[in-house]
Amino acid sequence: MIRVGIIGATGYAGEVLTWLLNNHPNVNLVFLASHSYGNSPFSSTYGNFTNIIEDLCIDTVKVYDNLDNIDILFTALPSGKTFSIVKKALENGVKVIDLGADYRLKSYETYEEWYNITHQGKELLKNAVYGLSEIYREKIKTSNLIANPGCYPTASSLALIPLLKHKLIDTNSIIIDAKSGVSGAGRKASTNNLFIECNDSIKAYGDAHHRHTPEIEQTLSCEANENILLTFTPHLVPMNRGILCACYSNLDKKIKLEEIYNIYKEFYNNELFIRIIDKLPETRWVKNSNYCDIGIRIDQRTNKIIVFSAIDNLMKGAASQAVQNMNIMYGLPEQTGINLTPMFP
Amino acid sequence: MIRVGIIGATGYAGEVLTWLLNNHPNVNLVFLASHSYGNSPFSSTYGNFTNIIEDLCIDTVKVYDNLDNIDILFTALPSGKTFSIVKKALENGVKVIDLGADYRLKSYETYEEWYNITHQGKELLKNAVYGLSEIYREKIKTSNLIANPGCYPTASSLALIPLLKHKLIDTNSIIIDAKSGVSGAGRKASTNNLFIECNDSIKAYGDAHHRHTPEIEQTLSCEANENILLTFTPHLVPMNRGILCACYSNLDKKIKLEEIYNIYKEFYNNELFIRIIDKLPETRWVKNSNYCDIGIRIDQRTNKIIVFSAIDNLMKGAASQAVQNMNIMYGLPEQTGINLTPMFP
Amino acid sequence: MIRVGIIGATGYAGEVLTWLLNNHPNVNLVFLASHSYGNSPFSSTYGNFTNIIEDLCIDTVKVYDNLDNIDILFTALPSGKTFSIVKKALENGVKVIDLGADYRLKSYETYEEWYNITHQGKELLKNAVYGLSEIYREKIKTSNLIANPGCYPTASSLALIPLLKHKLIDTNSIIIDAKSGVSGAGRKASTNNLFIECNDSIKAYGDAHHRHTPEIEQTLSCEANENILLTFTPHLVPMNRGILCACYSNLDKKIKLEEIYNIYKEFYNNELFIRIIDKLPETRWVKNSNYCDIGIRIDQRTNKIIVFSAIDNLMKGAASQAVQNMNIMYGLPEQTGINLTPMFP
Amino acid sequence: MIRVGIIGATGYAGEVLTWLLNNHPNVNLVFLASHSYGNSPFSSTYGNFTNIIEDLCIDTVKVYDNLDNIDILFTALPSGKTFSIVKKALENGVKVIDLGADYRLKSYETYEEWYNITHQGKELLKNAVYGLSEIYREKIKTSNLIANPGCYPTASSLALIPLLKHKLIDTNSIIIDAKSGVSGAGRKASTNNLFIECNDSIKAYGDAHHRHTPEIEQTLSCEANENILLTFTPHLVPMNRGILCACYSNLDKKIKLEEIYNIYKEFYNNELFIRIIDKLPETRWVKNSNYCDIGIRIDQRTNKIIVFSAIDNLMKGAASQAVQNMNIMYGLPEQTGINLTPMFP
Repeated sequence: MIRVGIIGATGYAGEVLTWLLNNHPNVNLVFLASHSYGNSPFSSTYGNFTNIIEDLCIDTVKVYDNLDNIDILFTALPSGKTFSIVKKALENGVKVIDLGADYRLKSYETYEEWYNITHQGKELLKNAVYGLSEIYREKIKTSNLIANPGCYPTASSLALIPLLKHKLIDTNSIIIDAKSGVSGAGRKASTNNLFIECNDSIKAYGDAHHRHTPEIEQTLSCEANENILLTFTPHLVPMNRGILCACYSNLDKKIKLEEIYNIYKEFYNNELFIRIIDKLPETRWVKNSNYCDIGIRIDQRTNKIIVFSAIDNLMKGAASQAVQNMNIMYGLPEQTGINLTPMFP
Repeated sequence: MIRVGIIGATGYAGEVLTWLLNNHPNVNLVFLASHSYGNSPFSSTYGNFTNIIEDLCIDTVKVYDNLDNIDILFTALPSGKTFSIVKKALENGVKVIDLGADYRLKSYETYEEWYNITHQGKELLKNAVYGLSEIYREKIKTSNLIANPGCYPTASSLALIPLLKHKLIDTNSIIIDAKSGVSGAGRKASTNNLFIECNDSIKAYGDAHHRHTPEIEQTLSCEANENILLTFTPHLVPMNRGILCACYSNLDKKIKLEEIYNIYKEFYNNELFIRIIDKLPETRWVKNSNYCDIGIRIDQRTNKIIVFSAIDNLMKGAASQAVQNMNIMYGLPEQTGINLTPMFP
Repeated sequence: MIRVGIIGATGYAGEVLTWLLNNHPNVNLVFLASHSYGNSPFSSTYGNFTNIIEDLCIDTVKVYDNLDNIDILFTALPSGKTFSIVKKALENGVKVIDLGADYRLKSYETYEEWYNITHQGKELLKNAVYGLSEIYREKIKTSNLIANPGCYPTASSLALIPLLKHKLIDTNSIIIDAKSGVSGAGRKASTNNLFIECNDSIKAYGDAHHRHTPEIEQTLSCEANENILLTFTPHLVPMNRGILCACYSNLDKKIKLEEIYNIYKEFYNNELFIRIIDKLPETRWVKNSNYCDIGIRIDQRTNKIIVFSAIDNLMKGAASQAVQNMNIMYGLPEQTGINLTPMFP
Repeated sequence: MIRVGIIGATGYAGEVLTWLLNNHPNVNLVFLASHSYGNSPFSSTYGNFTNIIEDLCIDTVKVYDNLDNIDILFTALPSGKTFSIVKKALENGVKVIDLGADYRLKSYETYEEWYNITHQGKELLKNAVYGLSEIYREKIKTSNLIANPGCYPTASSLALIPLLKHKLIDTNSIIIDAKSGVSGAGRKASTNNLFIECNDSIKAYGDAHHRHTPEIEQTLSCEANENILLTFTPHLVPMNRGILCACYSNLDKKIKLEEIYNIYKEFYNNELFIRIIDKLPETRWVKNSNYCDIGIRIDQRTNKIIVFSAIDNLMKGAASQAVQNMNIMYGLPEQTGINLTPMFP
């Protein structure tokens, strides 16, 4: 059994991660740590776990004393909050999967520019592996520190990588228009995320400068083997879960939709969790699952291609991809514990 | 392996049932039949099943030819639509779990009065067992025909039976005020159930004469060993899933809340799926699960007791209770395939 | 022109009140005061008012200096926050309509018991008039201090008063099961009211001890001319606006529904804002309006009567009833500035 | 008084139009005609109008007999359903404002290609005026046949025209990613628009070939004085009302955001219903109003500009713009009857 600890278990991603690991056949959940709800039962914050997890959350500071009891640590805290514990864990031989953003960007300067936080773990960046499971599986296998991808970058990168690998588009033309459910905004009490402020309305946010932009650019640049800048605009949609991305770009030449579909099907040929579908993706069809659905259209009139991708932001966009990465690290069948059929309605 | 067929697989309860049985370790799902979507792939109606169930639904009429291939048949059609196939199935030695209302009421006259349908299977009523799993477990074990309870009756009966068993209330005073998500209204195209007509509004319906009334009365009368009439009012709430019941009645004498809680905890002592909770139940804490959460309050000023119960109408109120009953019939551990932790958010 | 000031303009009720008064033909809106958003433009909190009200909100403490400039003050702050300013205003000859609860209960002991706040304006209680416009119109005309009714009490009282006036029910049997949109919970940042915590779920709250209980009892007792205790249970529904009440009670004798309807139609004969309807009320049909829709059903089997009432909690349940009361106080046609047809969808 | 008739009053746009015209000080509403609800009271379809409009809807076919009684006819039916009555009305000297698509495209070939309907009113196209009020005000004044713009084209065109007028962008680079509430899908009973199918999910639709594409292109081409093709993708969002457009294009040269803002403010200088705002638009701030909010961002890194626009799809995107056009045609102050402050929450 893999002995696991979670920091940030009472955030939304943390709670879903707890759900998955608590049901994972190879995992022994050793502790749940919470910044805000230390010393209160996990089930008092999340009533769905009544009678299921009645343990107290431990205080985040207590995690240091518990590193000997675990093999792997999942961290799901806001950016910049885990530099110290991650370092300590790795020193103690504990593997780390960080659901935050601290180790995603290879360049600490870029991190500091976009996150406005001083990076206090630069020396770890070299060995951190970006955990986009389908793309970096081989590196993940041998890593001790996984930077679990952001929700938008997961959906966007999986949608665009095949186009870039096949040099099919003008790389200066990429626009990603993304839409997310409100759980992406986290569980902090804020007027902006009140029911009344979000319900029955839609807005863009991030002012064309959202922090996930350089993360997407880094992945796409790496896969295209050239430096890519793109425009990324996230929106907030009145729903609990789900991300839908519309990824626009200019095709370099005329090409049939069928041909594109064949390229995608081949690229993701044996991937259990990527579904290349004829219809346009809808977030409801991937809810509560690790799937990423991808559908494609060409606007023949303007020779633009639009790749749509849908994921559950808390699952493939956070918790279930983290578990997928753990499975890869431990040589388990990749779908162990995350092989859920999406749930509707 | 238990060989299973489902009629009505493309309704909402049928789809959830398909989800559960497709993941059930002891089940071989032989066919999905659909009245409206015969001969089209199940996944074209429910995109969540893409790559997971690509089989065609068969036409409902084709079920007759397939009875030899199954051990048990689940029917999830509107009232009055399955008299003929149920009879045929039982004659062929196929067990039946009916998620509809046709075999719930012991009196066919009551059925005909409230449903306005001529009962064409009266001779089966004697042997049909009402599948409220926690209460009628022993009878379910040996039955070939289970009348799976309605969603409102499941939540209401589980909430009230302990009070009646202990003769704590005035049985003339029962009022059940129930609230349901829109999935309870089914998947038929109707103006009333359009997004725009349901969103951001609440209404009562049924005109104090909802069909689930005599079903609840039958169960409570049986458990109280006296004839009970009650007032039942359902409401439609703008949410996908969930039922919350507020069950009001007059206490016969002064009694402490703590004492009531002890009675409930003892009554449901070993029940895995009934959670007696201190807080008031919320439908979000039972979503996607077979749990029924029960919380209790006494209004000391008026000596009224209010028992609140919450279920997922498509799970404990339909599909997962049906599977629970199947498990009981086949001597499987009762939680097999339905032991899902509720999912939030 | 009536010169008006509002305290608490940036709460939800305050914002709707601002909307109404800003469009009222007889009103000059002198100042908007806000506890949390003093010195920032009203439109920066409520973007709907961009280009329409660009004035700064003033700090609540500045209201004292502005009493000379107004004829009437609307207060829409949490309980216990306006004792001092209300006193001062009345001393300065400024009329007051309080949308809070401080002057609703005639007995300060009851107030202190249910609100757990020391009443610091007891001497005003004698002259305060409870502003349920249709019932207390005559007293409102000559009052300087109106205690504007709570949202639940407005809907409940209007539904039940005709029954009590006609001595048709057992007054010990009243149960009010009420459902409210989330705007009733106010605009304070709290985890409980986040979109994710409220969406797609329903819960009861208040533990059978909600503060609106004694307010409803006071009104009904007064109208019935006997002391009434009742059971009141509010629920939170995932919608922006609206309250639906189901008011249950035992009929004293057999009576036809038609007869009851005639009694209600006669009782509310000339009332513009009360609609006695044959169908069951739905909150969507009263949205953005001052209407209260009432529909009635009798459960002949149990001889219980259920009166359903629907209002917009921010309008008839708060802001538009406050304006209605102002119109009455100033001898204006009662519908001035609040004669909005409900808006759907 | 302007004597008005409405065809299609029981659709969502028709109902909102009825709301507006019923409250319009210069209008006498002569008849409401409905295809599906002829001979039933308008208030039985829309309960918000109980006691307010109790008149029966007339059958659509009866409109021919009523043309003498009206000065202007509003048609709000699906495409291709009003060719005959519009012709007849114009022959009788009745002005027409068509909320449908039949007269929006100057080229009947384009209409027939995108709508797959034979155009039976080609001779009227020459004189029909496209009713984008702020842009074509002068032509609207003297027209007898107004083609009221589509919801997406209104939001898109108002957002992009200033850029085109000032030749600031590469006209081959325009991408419009639009999001609409479900009321845009109409009131027809269809499984796709059920609450359960739309709630808590988002999808794109139209397959990069939505019918509003040529309408937007026509307007922008006209204003840019060159032939423009663009890519347009609509999405369905789980909310009642509102459209948000993100309009992307490549800037021809470096330009400061402030300069762009000045251009927009000057372009829409005296326009009451266009608000150029610093923040990003949100649909909730324009709900129930005729406003179009526009906010702009430049992605300096890619030199792309994004213009965001928000409208209420049933108001500025349909009914209130139609009334605005009527006001222009009759020389009334343009805001008459539509000068509503947006309503929140």
